[in-house]
Amino acid sequence: MANVAKMVSWSGREGEAEGQGEATPLLNGTGGGAAAPPRQLTPSSSSLRLGRMSYVDLDDEHEPEMDPPRAHPNEIPHSEKVLSLKYESLDYDNCENQLFLDEEKRIKHTAFRTVEIRRWVICAMIGILTGLVACFIDIVVEYIAGLKYKVVKGNIDKFTKTGGLSFSLLLWATLNASIVMVGSVIVAFIEPVAAGSGIPQIKCYLNGVKIPHVVRLKTLVVKVCGVIFSVVGGLAVGKEGPMIHSGAVIAAGISQGRSTSLKRDFKIFEYFRRDTEKRDFVSAGAAAGVSAAFGAPVGGVLFSLEEGASFWNQFLTWRIFFASMISTFTLNSILSIYKGNPWDLSSPGLINFGRFDSEKMGYTFQEIPIFIFMGVVGGVLGAMFNALNYWLTMFRIRYIHRPCLQVIEAMLVGAVTAAVAFVMIYTSADCQPLQGSGMAYSLQLFCPDGEYNSMAAAFFNTPEKSVVRLFHDPPGTYDPMTLGLFTLMYFFLACWTYGLTVSAGVFIPSLLIGAAWGRLFGISLSYMTSGWIWADPGKYALMGAAAQLGGIVRMTLSLTVIMMEATGNVTYGFPIMLVLMTAKIVGDYFVEGLYDMHIQLQSVPFLHWEAPVTSHSFTAREVMSTPVTSLRRIEKVGVIVDILSDTSSNHNGFPVVESIPGSDQAAGLRGLILRSQLIVLLKHKVFVERANLSLVQRRLKLKDFRDAYPRFPPIQSIHVSQDERECMMDLTEFMNPSPYTVPLEATLTRVYKLFRALGLRHLVVVDNHNQVVGLVTRKDLARYRLGKEGLEELPLAQT
Amino acid sequence: MANVAKMVSWSGREGEAEGQGEATPLLNGTGGGAAAPPRQLTPSSSSLRLGRMSYVDLDDEHEPEMDPPRAHPNEIPHSEKVLSLKYESLDYDNCENQLFLDEEKRIKHTAFRTVEIRRWVICAMIGILTGLVACFIDIVVEYIAGLKYKVVKGNIDKFTKTGGLSFSLLLWATLNASIVMVGSVIVAFIEPVAAGSGIPQIKCYLNGVKIPHVVRLKTLVVKVCGVIFSVVGGLAVGKEGPMIHSGAVIAAGISQGRSTSLKRDFKIFEYFRRDTEKRDFVSAGAAAGVSAAFGAPVGGVLFSLEEGASFWNQFLTWRIFFASMISTFTLNSILSIYKGNPWDLSSPGLINFGRFDSEKMGYTFQEIPIFIFMGVVGGVLGAMFNALNYWLTMFRIRYIHRPCLQVIEAMLVGAVTAAVAFVMIYTSADCQPLQGSGMAYSLQLFCPDGEYNSMAAAFFNTPEKSVVRLFHDPPGTYDPMTLGLFTLMYFFLACWTYGLTVSAGVFIPSLLIGAAWGRLFGISLSYMTSGWIWADPGKYALMGAAAQLGGIVRMTLSLTVIMMEATGNVTYGFPIMLVLMTAKIVGDYFVEGLYDMHIQLQSVPFLHWEAPVTSHSFTAREVMSTPVTSLRRIEKVGVIVDILSDTSSNHNGFPVVESIPGSDQAAGLRGLILRSQLIVLLKHKVFVERANLSLVQRRLKLKDFRDAYPRFPPIQSIHVSQDERECMMDLTEFMNPSPYTVPLEATLTRVYKLFRALGLRHLVVVDNHNQVVGLVTRKDLARYRLGKEGLEELPLAQT
Repeated sequence: MANVAKMVSWSGREGEAEGQGEATPLLNGTGGGAAAPPRQLTPSSSSLRLGRMSYVDLDDEHEPEMDPPRAHPNEIPHSEKVLSLKYESLDYDNCENQLFLDEEKRIKHTAFRTVEIRRWVICAMIGILTGLVACFIDIVVEYIAGLKYKVVKGNIDKFTKTGGLSFSLLLWATLNASIVMVGSVIVAFIEPVAAGSGIPQIKCYLNGVKIPHVVRLKTLVVKVCGVIFSVVGGLAVGKEGPMIHSGAVIAAGISQGRSTSLKRDFKIFEYFRRDTEKRDFVSAGAAAGVSAAFGAPVGGVLFSLEEGASFWNQFLTWRIFFASMISTFTLNSILSIYKGNPWDLSSPGLINFGRFDSEKMGYTFQEIPIFIFMGVVGGVLGAMFNALNYWLTMFRIRYIHRPCLQVIEAMLVGAVTAAVAFVMIYTSADCQPLQGSGMAYSLQLFCPDGEYNSMAAAFFNTPEKSVVRLFHDPPGTYDPMTLGLFTLMYFFLACWTYGLTVSAGVFIPSLLIGAAWGRLFGISLSYMTSGWIWADPGKYALMGAAAQLGGIVRMTLSLTVIMMEATGNVTYGFPIMLVLMTAKIVGDYFVEGLYDMHIQLQSVPFLHWEAPVTSHSFTAREVMSTPVTSLRRIEKVGVIVDILSDTSSNHNGFPVVESIPGSDQAAGLRGLILRSQLIVLLKHKVFVERANLSLVQRRLKLKDFRDAYPRFPPIQSIHVSQDERECMMDLTEFMNPSPYTVPLEATLTRVYKLFRALGLRHLVVVDNHNQVVGLVTRKDLARYRLGKEGLEELPLAQT
Repeated sequence: MANVAKMVSWSGREGEAEGQGEATPLLNGTGGGAAAPPRQLTPSSSSLRLGRMSYVDLDDEHEPEMDPPRAHPNEIPHSEKVLSLKYESLDYDNCENQLFLDEEKRIKHTAFRTVEIRRWVICAMIGILTGLVACFIDIVVEYIAGLKYKVVKGNIDKFTKTGGLSFSLLLWATLNASIVMVGSVIVAFIEPVAAGSGIPQIKCYLNGVKIPHVVRLKTLVVKVCGVIFSVVGGLAVGKEGPMIHSGAVIAAGISQGRSTSLKRDFKIFEYFRRDTEKRDFVSAGAAAGVSAAFGAPVGGVLFSLEEGASFWNQFLTWRIFFASMISTFTLNSILSIYKGNPWDLSSPGLINFGRFDSEKMGYTFQEIPIFIFMGVVGGVLGAMFNALNYWLTMFRIRYIHRPCLQVIEAMLVGAVTAAVAFVMIYTSADCQPLQGSGMAYSLQLFCPDGEYNSMAAAFFNTPEKSVVRLFHDPPGTYDPMTLGLFTLMYFFLACWTYGLTVSAGVFIPSLLIGAAWGRLFGISLSYMTSGWIWADPGKYALMGAAAQLGGIVRMTLSLTVIMMEATGNVTYGFPIMLVLMTAKIVGDYFVEGLYDMHIQLQSVPFLHWEAPVTSHSFTAREVMSTPVTSLRRIEKVGVIVDILSDTSSNHNGFPVVESIPGSDQAAGLRGLILRSQLIVLLKHKVFVERANLSLVQRRLKLKDFRDAYPRFPPIQSIHVSQDERECMMDLTEFMNPSPYTVPLEATLTRVYKLFRALGLRHLVVVDNHNQVVGLVTRKDLARYRLGKEGLEELPLAQT
């Protein structure tokens, strides 16, 4: 957070017209939300509930549990071209201070095996619980959705005969809207961070950004209930994305052996109470989530690595894989038992793409250019989706920031979705023989007896089932007109839905849109070439689904593997890869991926894989924040309290320098100490009177720090008397004695690489005499971005 | 190499009996191979051709192309409990000196896109070429092996009737021995580094150890020919492992745009002429090799990451995946055309496990403990295999180090393999009906007409085909006795074969052994439970194969995925993972994995994923090499030449310190310069006379360094006159101005993490005033190993 001083200098620089002009009008907006004047540190009255990724408060740690009541202005100005200062960083660098070393030395090398076994046990538990949660969601959704469809179907069947189908429409729309309302209310009022799929949030978490409440039990409960309501409510959403978030929460909870929401501490796994270990488990949880959602354990591992990890560790990867496998296996067992064939193990994921017969549906050489073309289409459509959603999200951030409005919007979308579906079904004249179609909720409507409405097969069903039907229904099941209309309507519905204040994923809607136009494409191809190219519609539906999903989320390796595993067949690996790659390249030409876009809209200081290519032109000297507030190795308690209480410079890490009596100048670096550590020290009154410096100061154990993790009390809650202020505190055994440093001349690329590879939170910049001259934090690096004109620097703001 | 000074102190320390006693007798051995007296730097007369991983000379770069003639002692003492000093490190840290920065700044940000496109093109070429090489090997092996089997079969058929089968035996054995001889001769005499599968060598390379000749074109040619001869020669080997090495060589060659062996420079891809870029491409090549070998593109990527990468980079991973996909696709296309069904694309790899029908062969819940038990068996058998091979390798290193002996041993193994196979077939009475078995080379022998000898099906075939037959032959095809005997014999043959001086892989023999006992296990299970458990023998063969391979090579995630992809079916993912994990855990209890064992036997300073768990008790102070030879920023040429010529301290990196007139004491660190850079500077006479310090010294371009990469001339080849010795050289713009540093107090864990994550070659240790006090290199870190008694330090030796 050592950026406030910078902020000032930054504002100063703005006047020099260095090419950041485009952000200036918004920065000087009146709402106070973006780029507030430098001193205005906590504009909590306005910066909140910014749409979907509502990271609620400035700093989770330093505020009481209850958020203060807030006023809601009518419009919040917003720009994604700033970087928010409100996000804290996680610290993936172990603080190897004296306490830690003492503990490690006490542990015998054989005892480390116990620690390792515990890690495996936790991973197994993560897998089992994630699988169970996925089962729960699946079964409940199946049940309630079944009930709903039965009621609506009965109603429609009744009114088809007697006339007055508008009553059916009303019933359907009301039913959907009210179910969606419940789902939206719990998200908007109880835990806004549970909105959406949670994938952007988990990406940020694994990247090292602390997002308040994101891995709490309360979030999990709201997420699970929310997802059930939004799927049952008939929104164009999937239940797969949220599984990733759910897995992550489960992992964080289990690995810490306690729950903040329940206020219970089980006193287990205390060794793992630090950011490094917790992150590792959260990766495992996310992977387990993917695995349960798609039956894709390898895809899950790759997802975690692609989105999260920077340092590849073999043991960690293997544990992640273990959690993933256990998760899909648990889901598979339970669902198989539930479905009545317990030894069958045929449901590895929430969605299975069904059996693709490679012999019948293999691809040939000539089809490859066609697949690439489909990738291009997917990329363009995906970019359109994202661009539309971008404008929608900007609109939402500005105008729909009150929970009530959010709930109303969600209800509206629910009702509109039902209405659109109804009208589409009503006006469709595409009848298909019912025989052998195995449909659960077939609508006959105006079709002759023994036939069903084909449009209803796509709309009057959970989206997962519609996807699988599009893949596997025999050729001729769908009229091209039906598919075209469906694609068009579903595209806009899904786009409108993503970003609502409900728990929901975008994977399934994307797949559904893609499967629809892919199938249409296949049919057209056969038709246009007069059957010369026999394009199996199911295969083209699969490729279309891949193209559309790739065009929207822009995931690459992991998505290929997920799709491969979900089809249960490696034959399609190559074409799926081609399609996804093309979609990504084409899509990236226009606009960013959906998740990255939302992360940027929230001004999160996200660190990408590499520094922008041209960042060799900057050095640590230009990048760092300066001046730095340093502490002396033996420091007066009063000084520490004052520094910590200074709200204008909410620093979190302080370089510790050699005490030079009577001088406040920077001196040789000795270590680095964190705000959280100082708080614990102050709380435990670890200091001695100045006169008795020879006395031994009270010893703390690592346990004291672990117990306080991760929510250290705010400095205001610690009372330090006037006498105590005069005492001295020896930081030597608590500070990290060997923080990573870079010289002033190090290029931005180099600093970035070190910072990213080691998951740092603070990187000290030293001069040639090892004197502290600056500090590099996440924001200092995330600010640099490659724009159209070369390297851009984003301004920092207190949004 | 800053270790020689250390060496002395190390030898000194030995007297202090710090617990390295077990290595001492060998260290003081008489052969001079291991632990030579400190000053004896290049005992090239004896240290060479140490068995399989014969890294020929001390330092590839500094010696002329022709190796001097060598005497071969009768016995070479050897211990794996030392660390060799003869291996150089690769430098994966970009030297961001002034020249580099100038160049980067000249490149516009749009031009970086061209660089990126070039990377993709190279990856595509790597994929295509690797696929083509795999095709070539496959087709040639098929053809010659077919010829051989036809001749032998004709001969056997003839003598079965007339009697005198010993002639057939003789013919077969002679044929095999002579084919193996050719394969062994080219490896032993032309390029010893092409021996074996090359996986340990590639592992080392990706880990950052420079192994001479490992990525040369000559090596590739020898490898490809060698593998053809050893497979055709009937050895218990596979052609899959070597594909990984081949892919790596292809990648290194293409990415550098030139070949040392051909002495051609195509003047393309010059931007990629540095260790960092080259390593990235070599990872892609290795992945492409795996992909072509097993039709496992995802497995290939994971292999590269598991074995090589430490820093996971999304773009890199995606490129690796691209190369893998292209590789398997190329192979698939060509082989499909070759086999006459060009649009079928049914041969994604050199070995395909055939179609496992998941409906018929799915597993049930109850089988899981059985699979785990099989994993245990695989682990134990794998450990036995490795232990046996360990003793064999020790024997080979000591006694069979002359090329002639190596060739003779290879021939012997070839003949014995044929003889054993013959005897087994001869004595077997297991006849099976020929009908519908689709065997290419069936031996009737003494079976009734219309039947064939079942033992011959396993022995008289390329190992790949035997594996597939064991997976898919219908139940009842093999007699349990046949399988048991086959497992036993093949186990010993494969164990004897691995480590011969021939190009050959251990994957397929391991799979074959495992498939045999797995099938046997399945049959026994059905039999013992009286058919209560219906154990499909094919499925159990697959699990056995996984268990055995896992027990030998101990790969984890990547192997699971490779097996999954090779079966073309994700159903078996979970049981295969369980089996592999169990095999690994059980195997690790006894002895290391085969590749790691061989790496250790060669005393390679290999850096594992993490520092040993107890390494918190060491700090940089104890770990580093000291004193360090530093250079001043403006240094006298004579001093530089003397330092570089000093054979007693063959340093490769020199910290650059501020010039303090009249003092040789360590001073503030300014940068780091490499031996190779100094050599280029000296060669281009980049210096000015002392009197004219104000004159501008000759400017070099980055191109001059790139042209010299990777084989910089030795210092001896550069003539520096007496006048020139008095000149001054300004290192400022050539040195790396911001080398990574650690303070003295940093723990070994921390140093290790930094070093490993960033792929460093030199890490400077500085004191509190930024003065250079030590240097940490690869050997200083690789020395620490977790033994039974806690942390052990390996002694360093000039082996």
